[in-house]
Amino acid sequence: MSHSDESTAPAPTVDVLLPWPDLDVRHGPWPSNARVHVWDGLRAEDDLPGQVLDRVGLWVMQYAVPGVEELLPRLPALRAVQSLSAGVEKLLPLLPEGVRLYNGRGLHDASTAEHALGLILAAQRDLPCWIADQQAGRWEPHFTRSLADCRVAVIGYGSIGQALERRLLACEAEVVRVARRARPEADVHPVGDLPALLPTVDIAVLVLPETPATTGMFGAEELAALPDGALVVNVGRGRTLETEALLAETRAGRLRAALDVTDPEPLPGDHPLRQAPGVLITPHVGGGSAAFRPRAERLIVDQVRRYAAGEPLLNAFPRP
Amino acid sequence: MSHSDESTAPAPTVDVLLPWPDLDVRHGPWPSNARVHVWDGLRAEDDLPGQVLDRVGLWVMQYAVPGVEELLPRLPALRAVQSLSAGVEKLLPLLPEGVRLYNGRGLHDASTAEHALGLILAAQRDLPCWIADQQAGRWEPHFTRSLADCRVAVIGYGSIGQALERRLLACEAEVVRVARRARPEADVHPVGDLPALLPTVDIAVLVLPETPATTGMFGAEELAALPDGALVVNVGRGRTLETEALLAETRAGRLRAALDVTDPEPLPGDHPLRQAPGVLITPHVGGGSAAFRPRAERLIVDQVRRYAAGEPLLNAFPRP
Repeated sequence: MSHSDESTAPAPTVDVLLPWPDLDVRHGPWPSNARVHVWDGLRAEDDLPGQVLDRVGLWVMQYAVPGVEELLPRLPALRAVQSLSAGVEKLLPLLPEGVRLYNGRGLHDASTAEHALGLILAAQRDLPCWIADQQAGRWEPHFTRSLADCRVAVIGYGSIGQALERRLLACEAEVVRVARRARPEADVHPVGDLPALLPTVDIAVLVLPETPATTGMFGAEELAALPDGALVVNVGRGRTLETEALLAETRAGRLRAALDVTDPEPLPGDHPLRQAPGVLITPHVGGGSAAFRPRAERLIVDQVRRYAAGEPLLNAFPRP
Repeated sequence: MSHSDESTAPAPTVDVLLPWPDLDVRHGPWPSNARVHVWDGLRAEDDLPGQVLDRVGLWVMQYAVPGVEELLPRLPALRAVQSLSAGVEKLLPLLPEGVRLYNGRGLHDASTAEHALGLILAAQRDLPCWIADQQAGRWEPHFTRSLADCRVAVIGYGSIGQALERRLLACEAEVVRVARRARPEADVHPVGDLPALLPTVDIAVLVLPETPATTGMFGAEELAALPDGALVVNVGRGRTLETEALLAETRAGRLRAALDVTDPEPLPGDHPLRQAPGVLITPHVGGGSAAFRPRAERLIVDQVRRYAAGEPLLNAFPRP
């Protein structure tokens, strides 16, 4: 955080708040006109150096900052917030006017796509059964499904969906791309095609953000359109998939499910979905792996450089 | 199995024994000079049509044919055996002189590579923990390892290893190729490089056949060369990895393991490896998925066509 006197192009000094120390150690010196402060958002804000609240222009926000709604209005110089999450539906309404929001689009692609793939493989290859057998002392091999040759609908074909597609294709599966709007040039079907598409797939993966349009989008009708034995995967947001409808189909043994997100979330300890046959649940950990940090650090360093140089930042999130 | 009289090039009639009925229904008519008989090897051999034992020249063998050692000498016309397994170490010494062996190289690539990937993802992303939490009513997310950015040694870089490599690269992992002999043009390291390579990898995957050279090849010394927390995966043959040495490293919490094959196999119900921390075990099911059958059928149809036409068959396995 040293300031060089050799800077030839004078630029206004900017103050940046980052969530992690030592970023500069791994990524080289900051721009000479950037004053970088570190606050993880979890310790009391008194830990912030004096005057920082008055000056900070770019805040790269740690996940789950307690009291963020009280803190934001106290940052008079704030111009930009960088979230490290792709889903910013809760943060967006809290931002004061004039503060631009940048999201974590892309940061979780590798981690979430990898987790989705792990869930799919675990379900297709009966991993929960083998883990139970390992503990119970059984050695009773049986033939399983595979992922190879399966037809997989990726519903919500954004950057995570594309990362998942690359993995699925390498596994010799076929991918059907579905998004809100048709993109015929990229072979992307609109959600309106789902009634015709769903009966043709073996696996349906939801990678949807939570918006008014997606809430409850996958319900009894969509589930009923899937063939017997199909696998429903959700790594987007829990409320896009209707829990009661899924529970009915899985309890009947007609569909299987692998869920990293649920509705409600956290899923209560006694929720019947936990014991439904053919249902595999992980506690919203798709984005939370070692794959996240290096990608987040690369984005942060790039954004600080852009901000200090007065260039447009990446990943601008549109305000309504 | 109709025989056409329109064949212009007269060819000697051949008798072929296949393990599954209905192959011709899905794959079109057999060559006109091929008499195809079906016997799954599991029912009594009395079920074979009369004279078949005397005439069969190509036998496509079901897995695990009971009494195969008594049956083989009673097939005087036998010239070729097609195994559907890649590992033919048990079958080879039973074959009478003059009978050529063709193995199932390639048939299990997709299935086994997919299972290896599933094991790796389950281990890296803590799936056994989440499955236990699901049942116990817990929702306690924590940060996990990832596969992305990992350096993975594929030890035994054959056709399964190549299929695994394609999947690992799509998952943004780095692959180190290791085989018996160096192939510098393909960037394949010889096993002699392992002492230098192993300290640099996060994951070591064994995809080795069982031969005198590979038995016990991965022992205490190789395991000790791996860094703390590394994951050892075995989808080849159980005896290539020394169980006692692995048990010591996993019990100490220094290494993790994901094993589809074990030594001994089946693994006894009370074997300590089952309860060792960080060890995930499946009962030799890597090749046994839905991905196998369509690939096996395509090979069988091609081999029958080649055999009837007097052409060389694929996948000849060298006899010592």
